[in-house]
Amino acid sequence: MTIEDITLDDRGVMLTGPRLGVMGEQMEGMEAKMFDVDAAGGHVSFNGLELPMNPMIGVIGVAPEGDPINNGTPDRHGGNMDSKKITSGADLYLPVFHDGALFGLGDVHAKMGDGEISVSGLEIGSTVTVTLDKAHNMTTGHPVVIDEEGIYMMVSHESLDAAVDESVRQMIALLHPHTDLSLSELTMLMSLVGETQINQVVDPLKTARFFVPNSVLDHYNISFS
Amino acid sequence: MTIEDITLDDRGVMLTGPRLGVMGEQMEGMEAKMFDVDAAGGHVSFNGLELPMNPMIGVIGVAPEGDPINNGTPDRHGGNMDSKKITSGADLYLPVFHDGALFGLGDVHAKMGDGEISVSGLEIGSTVTVTLDKAHNMTTGHPVVIDEEGIYMMVSHESLDAAVDESVRQMIALLHPHTDLSLSELTMLMSLVGETQINQVVDPLKTARFFVPNSVLDHYNISFS
Repeated sequence: MTIEDITLDDRGVMLTGPRLGVMGEQMEGMEAKMFDVDAAGGHVSFNGLELPMNPMIGVIGVAPEGDPINNGTPDRHGGNMDSKKITSGADLYLPVFHDGALFGLGDVHAKMGDGEISVSGLEIGSTVTVTLDKAHNMTTGHPVVIDEEGIYMMVSHESLDAAVDESVRQMIALLHPHTDLSLSELTMLMSLVGETQINQVVDPLKTARFFVPNSVLDHYNISFS
Repeated sequence: MTIEDITLDDRGVMLTGPRLGVMGEQMEGMEAKMFDVDAAGGHVSFNGLELPMNPMIGVIGVAPEGDPINNGTPDRHGGNMDSKKITSGADLYLPVFHDGALFGLGDVHAKMGDGEISVSGLEIGSTVTVTLDKAHNMTTGHPVVIDEEGIYMMVSHESLDAAVDESVRQMIALLHPHTDLSLSELTMLMSLVGETQINQVVDPLKTARFFVPNSVLDHYNISFS
């Protein structure tokens, strides 16, 4: 699918507290903080510090393969991947497990970094426009995002170590058939240009993304659209 | 210290093989690959694919606190942190455990992404110039890098989960006294603007870095130099 547009409301909220996020053990009580969002200006103010917005979709996915998965958890079906890369202009590819896919989205943020370390982005009401299509040139067992910078393989796991390693392996498995490189050579190339990145570490499965720049796709004439 | 300059030789090497890096279980034999490096042009060619160089220092540190640590392992003293952020123009702050610090560096790469997933960057001979100084306005138990983008707290651990969490906590502990924010508010701000990033996942301790942009330091008039 293509994320066509994310239109934000003018008021959002963050929260954090005990046992939530990376700092949860040091928190003494739940705290919420309201924000006025200047969507037209593209900025949000945090105690007088002007910050650029980066609207993004936290939860987006299809019905999972087996047992139901609550909307707070990410996995192969998408779900709460909390990636700032899932934003306007990006293409998101998801595996489909059921007839009709049973697509849904929510949990839009006006701003968030990588990690979502407080357990919250700047949560906000939103109207989102997406174009859904059946992918004819992509087979993946995990969510894949392609944007103007490159391609991202997103893997969720209880262990960030396992999520990162599997995101690398899945990306190499996806790209290898499209190149003339040996597995050793492609692994070296990925070591040079690839980037192990992190969507979030709090959902409670953690989501890693492995990034490869479009220059590699272009050189090998790889197109998934 | 300040990394003043990294001058590269004109020939480098990569390697990967069984039980090395993220793909080690799928590798059938050791492979090495030589590269001609056009240091003046700032590019390196990988089978005809022109890639921009990003020279960086893999191993840099002081003598560790307790037992000796081999040069292939990172920890609080620095060591094999393999960070592409440790490059020309960056300031690196290290804790000092012994009189005179006993500084050393090596393992320069002409190019590497985040993760060093093959267990190797583009390894190359180099002449590096650094300026060493005693920091008068920084107390940290882990390596800290400051560059034109922002500040990075680097923490190494067997578990990437633990390394990421501790890098966030150490950064918040460093910044908190310089702000007028409650711990909850600072945690929210870090969730909005901070980024959980990864130096490497193969050394064998893994090194996470937590990034905060300079706009936050500037707003709170925080200067460590």
